[in-house]
Amino acid sequence: MTARQLIQVINPNTSLAMTETIGAAARAVAGPGTEIIAVCPSQGVPSIEGHFDEAVAAIGVLEQIKAGREQGVSGHVIACFGDPGLLAARELAQGPVIGIAEAAMHMATMVATRFSIVTTLPRTVIIARHLLQQYGFEHHCAALHAIDLPVLALEDGTGLAQEKVREGCIQAKRQDGSGAIVLGCGGMATLARELTLELGIPVIDGVGAAVKMVESLVALGLSTSKYGDLDYPVRKTLSGQFASLKLE
Amino acid sequence: MTARQLIQVINPNTSLAMTETIGAAARAVAGPGTEIIAVCPSQGVPSIEGHFDEAVAAIGVLEQIKAGREQGVSGHVIACFGDPGLLAARELAQGPVIGIAEAAMHMATMVATRFSIVTTLPRTVIIARHLLQQYGFEHHCAALHAIDLPVLALEDGTGLAQEKVREGCIQAKRQDGSGAIVLGCGGMATLARELTLELGIPVIDGVGAAVKMVESLVALGLSTSKYGDLDYPVRKTLSGQFASLKLE
Amino acid sequence: MTARQLIQVINPNTSLAMTETIGAAARAVAGPGTEIIAVCPSQGVPSIEGHFDEAVAAIGVLEQIKAGREQGVSGHVIACFGDPGLLAARELAQGPVIGIAEAAMHMATMVATRFSIVTTLPRTVIIARHLLQQYGFEHHCAALHAIDLPVLALEDGTGLAQEKVREGCIQAKRQDGSGAIVLGCGGMATLARELTLELGIPVIDGVGAAVKMVESLVALGLSTSKYGDLDYPVRKTLSGQFASLKLE
Amino acid sequence: MTARQLIQVINPNTSLAMTETIGAAARAVAGPGTEIIAVCPSQGVPSIEGHFDEAVAAIGVLEQIKAGREQGVSGHVIACFGDPGLLAARELAQGPVIGIAEAAMHMATMVATRFSIVTTLPRTVIIARHLLQQYGFEHHCAALHAIDLPVLALEDGTGLAQEKVREGCIQAKRQDGSGAIVLGCGGMATLARELTLELGIPVIDGVGAAVKMVESLVALGLSTSKYGDLDYPVRKTLSGQFASLKLE
Amino acid sequence: MTARQLIQVINPNTSLAMTETIGAAARAVAGPGTEIIAVCPSQGVPSIEGHFDEAVAAIGVLEQIKAGREQGVSGHVIACFGDPGLLAARELAQGPVIGIAEAAMHMATMVATRFSIVTTLPRTVIIARHLLQQYGFEHHCAALHAIDLPVLALEDGTGLAQEKVREGCIQAKRQDGSGAIVLGCGGMATLARELTLELGIPVIDGVGAAVKMVESLVALGLSTSKYGDLDYPVRKTLSGQFASLKLE
Amino acid sequence: MTARQLIQVINPNTSLAMTETIGAAARAVAGPGTEIIAVCPSQGVPSIEGHFDEAVAAIGVLEQIKAGREQGVSGHVIACFGDPGLLAARELAQGPVIGIAEAAMHMATMVATRFSIVTTLPRTVIIARHLLQQYGFEHHCAALHAIDLPVLALEDGTGLAQEKVREGCIQAKRQDGSGAIVLGCGGMATLARELTLELGIPVIDGVGAAVKMVESLVALGLSTSKYGDLDYPVRKTLSGQFASLKLE
Repeated sequence: MTARQLIQVINPNTSLAMTETIGAAARAVAGPGTEIIAVCPSQGVPSIEGHFDEAVAAIGVLEQIKAGREQGVSGHVIACFGDPGLLAARELAQGPVIGIAEAAMHMATMVATRFSIVTTLPRTVIIARHLLQQYGFEHHCAALHAIDLPVLALEDGTGLAQEKVREGCIQAKRQDGSGAIVLGCGGMATLARELTLELGIPVIDGVGAAVKMVESLVALGLSTSKYGDLDYPVRKTLSGQFASLKLE
Repeated sequence: MTARQLIQVINPNTSLAMTETIGAAARAVAGPGTEIIAVCPSQGVPSIEGHFDEAVAAIGVLEQIKAGREQGVSGHVIACFGDPGLLAARELAQGPVIGIAEAAMHMATMVATRFSIVTTLPRTVIIARHLLQQYGFEHHCAALHAIDLPVLALEDGTGLAQEKVREGCIQAKRQDGSGAIVLGCGGMATLARELTLELGIPVIDGVGAAVKMVESLVALGLSTSKYGDLDYPVRKTLSGQFASLKLE
Repeated sequence: MTARQLIQVINPNTSLAMTETIGAAARAVAGPGTEIIAVCPSQGVPSIEGHFDEAVAAIGVLEQIKAGREQGVSGHVIACFGDPGLLAARELAQGPVIGIAEAAMHMATMVATRFSIVTTLPRTVIIARHLLQQYGFEHHCAALHAIDLPVLALEDGTGLAQEKVREGCIQAKRQDGSGAIVLGCGGMATLARELTLELGIPVIDGVGAAVKMVESLVALGLSTSKYGDLDYPVRKTLSGQFASLKLE
Repeated sequence: MTARQLIQVINPNTSLAMTETIGAAARAVAGPGTEIIAVCPSQGVPSIEGHFDEAVAAIGVLEQIKAGREQGVSGHVIACFGDPGLLAARELAQGPVIGIAEAAMHMATMVATRFSIVTTLPRTVIIARHLLQQYGFEHHCAALHAIDLPVLALEDGTGLAQEKVREGCIQAKRQDGSGAIVLGCGGMATLARELTLELGIPVIDGVGAAVKMVESLVALGLSTSKYGDLDYPVRKTLSGQFASLKLE
Repeated sequence: MTARQLIQVINPNTSLAMTETIGAAARAVAGPGTEIIAVCPSQGVPSIEGHFDEAVAAIGVLEQIKAGREQGVSGHVIACFGDPGLLAARELAQGPVIGIAEAAMHMATMVATRFSIVTTLPRTVIIARHLLQQYGFEHHCAALHAIDLPVLALEDGTGLAQEKVREGCIQAKRQDGSGAIVLGCGGMATLARELTLELGIPVIDGVGAAVKMVESLVALGLSTSKYGDLDYPVRKTLSGQFASLKLE
Repeated sequence: MTARQLIQVINPNTSLAMTETIGAAARAVAGPGTEIIAVCPSQGVPSIEGHFDEAVAAIGVLEQIKAGREQGVSGHVIACFGDPGLLAARELAQGPVIGIAEAAMHMATMVATRFSIVTTLPRTVIIARHLLQQYGFEHHCAALHAIDLPVLALEDGTGLAQEKVREGCIQAKRQDGSGAIVLGCGGMATLARELTLELGIPVIDGVGAAVKMVESLVALGLSTSKYGDLDYPVRKTLSGQFASLKLE
């Protein structure tokens, strides 16, 4: 447990700036024995704001999972709030794979009876809604709020998006009576600590949450079950551009 | 309505034999004004038996959706029982997009109070289970059965898989007391009619069901809503192998 | 499939004007091989706006189902948004029986992630709510709106009710962010196409939807399952006014 | 509260023998101030074993509700396990109306964490299943068992059906581990006390349960809400055989 | 049934004034053969406004259950709206044990299609929410309202809290369109009758409801199931202050 | 984060042997900067096998939470599979409080699509069932198994209970097709690692899981929300034996 371990944090979009933001957030909370490798796909979409973007990004996630596995990482984080490709990634991986929406939602239920989500574009709300249903947290989420700015506004250097997130959190606390807030985008990762202090309630960033979850699973000797549903993909020919995804 | 219309039936795997099976099943039920175009991706996986396969197949589905759109098809069918890439495809498409699991499950609830599903490998059961939850049919499905043969056994010419499906349906009727059975694989499409007759209960193939659903929506002047969640993907640079997916 | 087929559209109330409205809506979408027979009970209630009205109307539905069956119709539509007598009708019928609430709700889930309902009197909202639960669509319906006018206001020739429906749809689109709207009364059937065009989102009429669903089931060789729950009624003496409902 | 009050127990089928059985069961538990009026429709079905039977019986229930109301009864019991016409009856009635399935299920949840149901024909199971969902008790019911004998076998004097019910209860206790059993037919009413003693767990008859529930509501000054959904039926012409159902 | 019976009404907090209020409300509805014993714990919390208070109060409830049992009472009421210690009390008791939240919620579902709750402090809302989920009534409750005054304000003699409850009920009726209202605190028990009259809809007090429910169960010969989950506590040493809770 | 921190692991029963077992399991997974304080109440029940036992144990948990808080611990674990007193403890605590059922269930959903639970006595199954519902994991749990031995059999030194647990896990894997197993008792904590190895699937002990969850929350700067539902108990007089629970 005190041995050195690598955790791969995959930003599923191709924005290098966001990959750095996410990597920094991950490193800020990583344990003393953990080294963070923050990566993003070489091909794909620069931001993820819908189901189409997610489908494209899932392939990039899988490529990185395979690369991480070959590097011998102990576990993987999918650092986009829609957790794109999560179950596919679990099939491909040997170690644990944690999505940031998943990690943040789980933790929120352990520090408050109900939580709110603050996300970017309104059209990403449906993705969070589906995840709440899939993970079992429909009754734990009081409301979802969208700041109505695109994901990359978080990287434009003006601070406008950050201010909108702050306002969204304040409004969510007041309106919903929620005890905690989940930040609905990997690009908001660095805001969690200061907003937690300012608002006086837990404001949860999934990147940090997911890193700690992977560390925890590794420390416990637990990994993705390879019995049944999440077993390695059935061996078959992957043709064309997908050939490189094949496990040896 | 009596005008000629094209419906694109997309087999998400790369098996040409299965694409033919599916195309034939679609043509067998298509209305007089409908022309079926049965296609499959040029790259991808030869069969879909897990989440990884689905993630890969989703890209092939999107490529075909775009191609179909450029051909002026009226609507699209995703002919794999996991409905891979369904919501992403709806974003990309102008016309309606129907998955075969979706179509078969919906129809089953209208001819029986509860139905059973007969599928291929046990590991695909979880995918059907998630779809039941997402579509709202958890309480309408009495049980899921797997014949424990891979998808492509349905195309090996021995008839063994077909016999196993038949036995699975008989067993499902007896054990579950279900009034209808849903066939859980596009490759089973041609079995529905004869099993319906033999068993004396509706045995539902999603390929046919989805074709009729697309025809119905088109006749009603209804198409995928472009307001909000399923609007066309936000315009952004798609890099590398994904560049060809971009809408003009 | 290209053979001539009769589809019986049953208006469960006794309003001849509404029966005509519904019949016209059905004919407007029927396929080339379909002949629509629009009927209503000779006895019952002139409009259906509560559970009592539904109980009375259900008997009229059953009488018509029996009559339709004797005429050799291929399938039946129950054209009142509460789907009164649906399961009883399925027991009595040989062919498929589809309710218009059912048909509209199912189709709405295939063109949008969430839909809203616009209905007549507030007290009919609970009926729609119960149907959403029974059909599995509680999570797919964003909100229910009532225009607070009785059903027959739709037939009074002033156009007031139609204008209120239009306003209700516009408000539902704006407030709920729903991608589609379901019209909550058979009497609204003729409004769907123009509202779809005006609002730019699918506005769904159940009468048309149900006709296409019956045509689809018939084309697929599927009918109400007679195995188990929906088998013909157990043979027994029906006394008094109900004697005429008995199957030979 | 000590004043004399009439409670009307409506057997929705036309079997006089069963009406007597039910009346006797009601009288056996009625409070000192309660007089039981046990009635059945003059027309309808001799037993209720499906949705069709229920639709017919609902009219008989409504006729009796109206008659009871004119007699000045304090409340009504619908003594068939499917609770046919319950919400319609509540609209028509001034006093409380309680179904026996409802009453038995509610009470079962207060004496055990989970209960089982023992009913007659297998095809009535789906009706109980739908009621569990509507009343909110899906998670409180461990299993449903059918003795596979028709309802009227309970009145044939041989005792065979009663013995089958007894065996069903014993089996349910052993197999399901349920702490209580709900008898799924009004005709089983007289068995509850002896089975409760023999099995050593609460075996609940809905007829008695519903009578006590009506007495309780009356004593508390509570009655069917006439605000909103369950208000008296909207006044309108009831034509033909239904004219007699109209409230003055 | 006409024999004299004792019903123990346990106020789980230590307020003597509230114990009297509750006892009076219980006596006002008790049947002619029922004698009410209203008690409260000798130690504990003076009011219950959160989970901590409930945990403390549960011990007081258990002590009183044991005392009541030794006195030969026929059944027990837990007269705090969170139903603290309910399942533990059922293990300890021989007779039925009914919580006032439980009783009020059950009855509300039988007189209206949906109900609202009016409670005291906002932080007690989550407790009611959890009970709705546990009892199966999530879909039957339209909304929860808090008057934002502490429980004991109901006993301060100013009438302010009572007026706030009245306003809350009026607002709930108007805003939620609910057909019935459940009073969310034992201290509101005496308000139910007058508010029922003033508002013209059932306003339900759980104390009265629970007393009638216990009387009903006793009259039916039904009691807490001792088979399985609610059997008497496994015999073991109870140390320290808890020794007195042990059954002989 | 690398600073020394205390985590208090509370065994809610009074068994010193089990407190040691649990403490050892906690220490085996604790991070380098964590010191585990394993405690149990001085008064209460020697084992927890029902709702009554839980109610008693909850007081002991609260006493220890208060003591731990005064010692300056960073967070608390409630090491009994029913998570007794969890929400009350969260009100009293400043730091995070995690139950072992909660922690194990959450982690199980992240390494497998469905899990099974193996617990001690059959009557504890209902407690786990209620937690699954409360936490949102009803659909993630495939089945619950009881070895039918009391909790303290795990401490009797014969190894019989351990062997039964092992058999239960093997059976659960085979029968349920679950990808992971959750051990349903704090006393099983030390078995997780070896069973994980033997069975080849994650077998999850909640004690270890909860320790890592507390460490994670602390590292992330997250703690129990003091806004709203889980705020410190409202200040009031605690009388008698409960006086010592009062916060200064």
